Amino acid sequence: MTEQLIKQRLASLAAKFKENQVDGIIVTSTSNVSYLTGFMGHDSWALVLGRRIWLLTDSRYTEQAKTECPACKIIQRKKTLAEEAAKILKRNKSVNKLAVEDTATLAVFAIIKKHIKLKFKKTSGLIETLRTIKSDDEIVNIVKASKIADASLDQVIAQMRVGMTESDFAGMLDYEMRKRNSIAAFDAIVCFGSNGSRNHHFPGPRKLKKNDTVLVDFGAVYKGYRSDKTRTFAVGKVNKTFAKAYETVAAAQAAAIDLIAEGVTLKDIDNAARDVIKETLFPVYGHGTGHGLGLDIHEQPFMSPIAKGKLKAGQAITVEPGIYIPGKFGIRIEDDILVTPAGHKILTRTKKSPELKIITI
Amino acid sequence: MTEQLIKQRLASLAAKFKENQVDGIIVTSTSNVSYLTGFMGHDSWALVLGRRIWLLTDSRYTEQAKTECPACKIIQRKKTLAEEAAKILKRNKSVNKLAVEDTATLAVFAIIKKHIKLKFKKTSGLIETLRTIKSDDEIVNIVKASKIADASLDQVIAQMRVGMTESDFAGMLDYEMRKRNSIAAFDAIVCFGSNGSRNHHFPGPRKLKKNDTVLVDFGAVYKGYRSDKTRTFAVGKVNKTFAKAYETVAAAQAAAIDLIAEGVTLKDIDNAARDVIKETLFPVYGHGTGHGLGLDIHEQPFMSPIAKGKLKAGQAITVEPGIYIPGKFGIRIEDDILVTPAGHKILTRTKKSPELKIITI
Repeated sequence: MTEQLIKQRLASLAAKFKENQVDGIIVTSTSNVSYLTGFMGHDSWALVLGRRIWLLTDSRYTEQAKTECPACKIIQRKKTLAEEAAKILKRNKSVNKLAVEDTATLAVFAIIKKHIKLKFKKTSGLIETLRTIKSDDEIVNIVKASKIADASLDQVIAQMRVGMTESDFAGMLDYEMRKRNSIAAFDAIVCFGSNGSRNHHFPGPRKLKKNDTVLVDFGAVYKGYRSDKTRTFAVGKVNKTFAKAYETVAAAQAAAIDLIAEGVTLKDIDNAARDVIKETLFPVYGHGTGHGLGLDIHEQPFMSPIAKGKLKAGQAITVEPGIYIPGKFGIRIEDDILVTPAGHKILTRTKKSPELKIITI
Repeated sequence: MTEQLIKQRLASLAAKFKENQVDGIIVTSTSNVSYLTGFMGHDSWALVLGRRIWLLTDSRYTEQAKTECPACKIIQRKKTLAEEAAKILKRNKSVNKLAVEDTATLAVFAIIKKHIKLKFKKTSGLIETLRTIKSDDEIVNIVKASKIADASLDQVIAQMRVGMTESDFAGMLDYEMRKRNSIAAFDAIVCFGSNGSRNHHFPGPRKLKKNDTVLVDFGAVYKGYRSDKTRTFAVGKVNKTFAKAYETVAAAQAAAIDLIAEGVTLKDIDNAARDVIKETLFPVYGHGTGHGLGLDIHEQPFMSPIAKGKLKAGQAITVEPGIYIPGKFGIRIEDDILVTPAGHKILTRTKKSPELKIITI
């Protein structure tokens, strides 16, 4: 990450300090540390005072941090991270009140309070709100993560065989992403046949049949950024109800995507997809219609019937309606979309409407 | 998990309630929820009042919970988990003070306090302390997880080729575990050559050479239980310094393992391994000598130079000394050991002393 980009982010964060009447923040969330420093390791904190930033890490990561964090002062800890932060704060006597992230655990906050005798304000989403608007570089990374995922799925589809298990499929997919120097963005959901109706199904020993359906929800990582997509397809022959449901989900997804533009309410996006399914005899899905993504797989904003707020240009979001018939099948189609001032751009495919793929094996 | 086993665990926990002067606990840690209920899903809490237990979950998991949790009352939430807990507590008027785990986030604690108007005590390791002593069933699961890992590594070794990347190796290993209906217990560390000296190296594009070394730190999962082992081996020819360092690490590991028995101090175990390396010209490793494992990959106890406490019978621990020469190589040997009243049992291999494996490809 460039020093300039980090400085821009720190300037935006400094404005949040003013709003919240704090002099700085102790950043304990791994993704937020990455966002503000460029550091991709773990077990590290960032301390931000005004526009100055320190990365607090340990000997395992010092070398890596030097390469990744051009804008930070890097502290290799001798004691706990909280004690290292305390040392810096003792040299900065004008600091009076610090933000702590409400994603920190009670244990972490206790150790912070033990070593740092200042006032604290528990804040929610201070950095996450900045992260929701992506820079061009971040969008490029998401697109690259998506391309790795596509190429990997294509390879797995080419190797599909009757008798393979869901677990085999998931393992193959992970392996194909690893071959491309990537890694799974999250534990893939792979469902054969009726398992598709189970929203958080863990890939198991269910074997692929001659005429079967497959739902796969997965993503890859590129430079820390994640892609997230779901594809549903038929193997061999396709059942008429399944094909009809597929068309409905595709239409629901298209309706939501068509509406995406800066200023549209999150609720309206959710409704647009849901309404298409409501007009049919198929049941309406119980999950949200989509979510932001980036360094984390689930980020602001979240689109659901009870969502508040509007889309902003620069947000990268998923749109993922589904139809689930317990005991029969599950269908979900998910793509990643960039919100633009005038509309949107689909990041995960070029064709506008997904078509039901029928795989012959 | 059997109802009887759950009841035993709840009885042990009830004793902790007395010590801590609380009437029950809100369990927010996923592994602790699994331990007390048998539930293997996510996003769920347990509420324990005396010896009664409720699993609070959502519609995605209700069916699974019914199978997995014979001893629990299962609540499918309509509102937040905290609101569902509040409903139960309103019907149990004698409850005055509840424990909350200090692994909960500030945000989670805030929502608990918002909906539940009782006294709270922040506790550390209440359930983790129970989890450190494994039942026979738990040990069987760790051994099975270890056997899956062994079989998977054997397959990868059989497929090793000059030119394959660390990322390929890691992907193949994940795939082999998936083929066995398992999954990686954590992101495998795979290091070729000099990358072995980087303790938390992420498998990358480094290619395997004709004469090379490999360090692989990985594990599999069986019924939620994890194995964790490290193997270091040479491909083609082995360099003399490497072989000498390997023997030293093996001797260091053997010295620590030999000492393992109930009542031995954690510090002494750590020293036993470290002392063997101190007697040579090789540098002493900077990490701890081992840790407990089970539902989590890192559990109590932790063996390091500053560790306090003693080993207890029934603990499953790793012993993993290493020698790391930056720019040259890294060696670590790690096995999982059961502490018994009179000594120990090695869970991850049958032979007592590991030997340097030289792979010809």
